[in-house]
Amino acid sequence: MKVFNFSAGPSTLPKEVLLEAQKDFVDYKGTGMSVTEMSHRSKAYDEIHIEAIALLKKLLNISDEYEVLFVQGGASTQFSAVPLNLLHNKADYILTGNFAKKAYEEAKRFGEINVCASSEDKNFTYIPEGKEINISKDADYVHITQNNTVFGTRYINLPQTDVPIVSDMSSNILSEVIDVNKFGLIYAGAQKNIAPAGVTIVIVRKDLINQPQTICPTMLMYKTHAKANSLYNTPPCFSIYMAMLVFRWLDKLGGIKEMQKINEYKANLLYDYIDNSKMFKNNVEKKFRSIMNVIFNTGDQDLDAKFVKEATEHGIISIKGYKLLGGMRASIYNAMPVEGVEYLIDFMKKFEMENK
Amino acid sequence: MKVFNFSAGPSTLPKEVLLEAQKDFVDYKGTGMSVTEMSHRSKAYDEIHIEAIALLKKLLNISDEYEVLFVQGGASTQFSAVPLNLLHNKADYILTGNFAKKAYEEAKRFGEINVCASSEDKNFTYIPEGKEINISKDADYVHITQNNTVFGTRYINLPQTDVPIVSDMSSNILSEVIDVNKFGLIYAGAQKNIAPAGVTIVIVRKDLINQPQTICPTMLMYKTHAKANSLYNTPPCFSIYMAMLVFRWLDKLGGIKEMQKINEYKANLLYDYIDNSKMFKNNVEKKFRSIMNVIFNTGDQDLDAKFVKEATEHGIISIKGYKLLGGMRASIYNAMPVEGVEYLIDFMKKFEMENK
Repeated sequence: MKVFNFSAGPSTLPKEVLLEAQKDFVDYKGTGMSVTEMSHRSKAYDEIHIEAIALLKKLLNISDEYEVLFVQGGASTQFSAVPLNLLHNKADYILTGNFAKKAYEEAKRFGEINVCASSEDKNFTYIPEGKEINISKDADYVHITQNNTVFGTRYINLPQTDVPIVSDMSSNILSEVIDVNKFGLIYAGAQKNIAPAGVTIVIVRKDLINQPQTICPTMLMYKTHAKANSLYNTPPCFSIYMAMLVFRWLDKLGGIKEMQKINEYKANLLYDYIDNSKMFKNNVEKKFRSIMNVIFNTGDQDLDAKFVKEATEHGIISIKGYKLLGGMRASIYNAMPVEGVEYLIDFMKKFEMENK
Repeated sequence: MKVFNFSAGPSTLPKEVLLEAQKDFVDYKGTGMSVTEMSHRSKAYDEIHIEAIALLKKLLNISDEYEVLFVQGGASTQFSAVPLNLLHNKADYILTGNFAKKAYEEAKRFGEINVCASSEDKNFTYIPEGKEINISKDADYVHITQNNTVFGTRYINLPQTDVPIVSDMSSNILSEVIDVNKFGLIYAGAQKNIAPAGVTIVIVRKDLINQPQTICPTMLMYKTHAKANSLYNTPPCFSIYMAMLVFRWLDKLGGIKEMQKINEYKANLLYDYIDNSKMFKNNVEKKFRSIMNVIFNTGDQDLDAKFVKEATEHGIISIKGYKLLGGMRASIYNAMPVEGVEYLIDFMKKFEMENK
């Protein structure tokens, strides 16, 4: 049976990347070793590591004012690492979903944190903009969650501010063109748009990382990893190798600009169908709709459950919505082919016909 | 060319495990998905996760008084996590090598730490025992590094104490029979004896984890992961899957008791040759010699360099000693076949003949 994996993360990886990794799995390029068992100080691994960093810099057009780090622990660990490295006076957080709230709750443990905007008043169906946001002029940073995996929203415009913007891009990194120079720090768990779970990307302005709080664990200090080019201790080599292959795949495809076009095409296909459907609806304010995570429901919990069950039987995997929200969620990250979205829409049409 | 990988970590994995992972890499057991892209909340991954924990408990005969956790960040992150979770009054550290010292340096940042023994006086060529160790009766724990990867030593007897023993077993876990009940906490980066880098094993007595320091990041709290069965956030799924396959391989082989016999056999082969060689020597006090990391040198730096170069050309990979110490190091973890040790010895004999 054909299978399309709509999981919010870990998520679909490009088939050609998986096939290449499989081919080289036991004997990487004639070394006689698997990437899973190579010393992180070996020449073969070093080449992978260097290429991964170089390709990420190329894809995102990252200047030398930034460090590119590969760390561990997922975005959840960054919820602590960000304040432990950047918070000296106070910081502002914009609440646009449950991960934004988690980041905020954790940061409060390490200093003065102010909520400068929130969309909780409308159950996170929009993104605060313009005058809805009041950033403290003396904040060390303002934290945003740029794409909200659970609530299916994304920022269209960044907050207008001179305060460094810290962005959790776990679910939208490499999916659309961004200007890295507008950010103080970007972090992203790799398991949605980049690689298998186990590596976290941090892109941070070099001038921001020199004064971590005294209580910051050494392994959570950005400067530890910056000084060692992310080889302070053993990195998650295999995840970084897979990231490198995905970066190559993206580069070959034409980079982020081309990827964004495909992502917008896929998302529009699905939203257009939903907006024209009599059964399915999406209640996110249109301009803020995520192009990565498309949420929808029938308004009837039993019918939602029936949809999820039958979809799964048809090879539409992990389509159930996040427990907080119910309904359905189609995560259509970079590696989800157009064919997968079409397959989902065909099934939705059939389901709507059979259950009207 | 035949290749044997003597890297201290990441290290050789069992060939049959690599072949199985390769076979299932693109389509795991008919799911149509790779383990690298599966939701960590999926049934297929959940079975892997549960089996990995169950097998580790079986192999080490771990009682229900202990939590078995899969976390991220390597042993280096545990250098902080241990004091952040267990240190309330003071703790004692035994210094037996550079990783033990790193653990000690990091712990000092989070409270009162006492060095209760050290073998630095003889350049870490032995392990302090008996009256050489003065553990404070009111210490929260005493920290040991049970196998010293760089200096090629290991504990034969644990310190005699009622204080909980915290052991860094990164380079000896699953290599020899241990009584888990003698420990308060065991931690180990997986990349030596267990799996690809990216997952860290923590085995901890349940009563020790309820009062982390207030400054402990949520992701470094053991209770965070204990409550969620190591699924608080996305775990490093693929590394855990590989660990599960290695646990199965060990179990099939007869468990740790059988593995230990093989490990002792391999280590004895190599030490016997070294002790009888006129060229190579190992200066570790014999009873404390590691059965995982065998260090040796010729006493001549140029000759050492020549050995490393020619060995590498003969498929003997990552045999160079740690930079601190120079010379050579053969890491012969569980997955190194007897054949690999014999191959190394044959080469050493040939080299000795050609260079006497």
